[in-house]
Amino acid sequence: MNYDFFHYVDLIGTLAFAISGALAAINRNLDIFGVFVISFITACGGGVIRDICIGSFPPAGLINLEYLIIVILSVFLCGFFQKLLLRLNHPTLFFDAIGLGFFASFGAHKTYFFTGNSELAILLGIVTAVGGGILRDTLTTTIPSVLTKEIYASAAIVGAVIQLLGENNIINPALAPWLAILICSSIRLLSLKFKWNLPSIKQVQ
Amino acid sequence: MNYDFFHYVDLIGTLAFAISGALAAINRNLDIFGVFVISFITACGGGVIRDICIGSFPPAGLINLEYLIIVILSVFLCGFFQKLLLRLNHPTLFFDAIGLGFFASFGAHKTYFFTGNSELAILLGIVTAVGGGILRDTLTTTIPSVLTKEIYASAAIVGAVIQLLGENNIINPALAPWLAILICSSIRLLSLKFKWNLPSIKQVQ
Amino acid sequence: MNYDFFHYVDLIGTLAFAISGALAAINRNLDIFGVFVISFITACGGGVIRDICIGSFPPAGLINLEYLIIVILSVFLCGFFQKLLLRLNHPTLFFDAIGLGFFASFGAHKTYFFTGNSELAILLGIVTAVGGGILRDTLTTTIPSVLTKEIYASAAIVGAVIQLLGENNIINPALAPWLAILICSSIRLLSLKFKWNLPSIKQVQ
Repeated sequence: MNYDFFHYVDLIGTLAFAISGALAAINRNLDIFGVFVISFITACGGGVIRDICIGSFPPAGLINLEYLIIVILSVFLCGFFQKLLLRLNHPTLFFDAIGLGFFASFGAHKTYFFTGNSELAILLGIVTAVGGGILRDTLTTTIPSVLTKEIYASAAIVGAVIQLLGENNIINPALAPWLAILICSSIRLLSLKFKWNLPSIKQVQ
Repeated sequence: MNYDFFHYVDLIGTLAFAISGALAAINRNLDIFGVFVISFITACGGGVIRDICIGSFPPAGLINLEYLIIVILSVFLCGFFQKLLLRLNHPTLFFDAIGLGFFASFGAHKTYFFTGNSELAILLGIVTAVGGGILRDTLTTTIPSVLTKEIYASAAIVGAVIQLLGENNIINPALAPWLAILICSSIRLLSLKFKWNLPSIKQVQ
Repeated sequence: MNYDFFHYVDLIGTLAFAISGALAAINRNLDIFGVFVISFITACGGGVIRDICIGSFPPAGLINLEYLIIVILSVFLCGFFQKLLLRLNHPTLFFDAIGLGFFASFGAHKTYFFTGNSELAILLGIVTAVGGGILRDTLTTTIPSVLTKEIYASAAIVGAVIQLLGENNIINPALAPWLAILICSSIRLLSLKFKWNLPSIKQVQ
């Protein structure tokens, strides 16, 4: 449960979201700085909102050079290995799903560590996980993923809750982040693959 | 003018916006967690922005269990009594109008109480009132209500100003919130019903 | 490098963005309060996000009466001199370009002054410059300027970097803001006029 471990969880989530943002921006034919801006906002947006809400100023995403380097790296990766990445079905959504698990875990952990408030930890775990993707989709004028019928917010909630159970020693705290990441990202990926849907509240005609 | 009274004003506004958010999300066929997320953002979004701007961390909307319970309740209400709610014309806009009055009053009150700054109180009264609805409409890819020609921002400004007159004892402080809520919500509802419009600045052809 | 000079830089940027916001809102046929709200958000939105990120509460844009007066003035100007303003090609984008330069310089300066962090100064210089325009375009359901292929984010980055070179005495600090404003706004205006584009990363078909 040391700082270093969660720092890597954060960086991997950042990388996954940076790639998903860069791919979405390339898909919209933006110039290279536009791709960089969308990639950065996707990668750091959810975390910045979380840090603002827990009163941690300035938000880590804006002062840590590592994030910036990861985003620049992602833009280059997407430029050079685009053909490879596009072999995946829905590559933007694939990397988004990976980031979802890592950020749900890290967001819940950091918030609980700072505030000790369980409700806030779950809510800001969700915000960290879905915030960047919502910003990416809104800025590239796509309908936000959270709005498609596919399981999305639900996966983030599950990830944040598992992490929180670990913070409270209800499940093994060394295992909790791995479980949270594995289950959250898997639920999202499987729901994409098999087009799982939660029941929606039937709208009266 | 005790804390308790305004606390109820806040909770009723939250309930009204939570219902309007849940109805809008059901209308988009989201899964039940998606409905919960949109309902929560609509109900708490404006207040969270207000609390961030006055430097009150963490924002009340994210740590108070009451809001969470109200949102869950609203989602169930909307699921079970949908037929009843949909008998109203534009049910989303009806509950939005009720929330508008309560939040304009509460937002102006809380900001003035925290900062003693009149301009900030009016601006953040408006933000509290219209913020959640703008987020709801942006996330469900509807054109924000504030953009329709119908009177919307104007009603929120009137509500916030009346509340502020009460805070400064220019009108009876015990009466001010009632007046603010009644006038703001009525202006909005009547403008919906009778399609009132303020003059727009004629665009040169 | 006194406070007063940068204060004027900020006010001119605010005026330019307020006009661009008012023109965009008039173009959408909003009522006069709607025009005021969009104008205010365009003028103060970027700065409010910047102030929140550097932990300066309440954000200057919400408590300084000067901004409010500038916005009200802009709405009147746009109402009365619309014919004159519309003689310009893309008047919204013209005033947006002017504001871009002033805000890139001021945003980088204020952030560096508050935090002494170079990365943050550049990032929040960009945020100050492009934030208001993104909010204006999102709220008026236009595709954000930052997303068009034309050089936009790139101009803001150049402006923020030049200002930062001045803050660190690498170039003459009295000259830096003038250079930043001139170069940033000129790049943007020339790219509009001559339809300059940066290379985009070719999308694999």
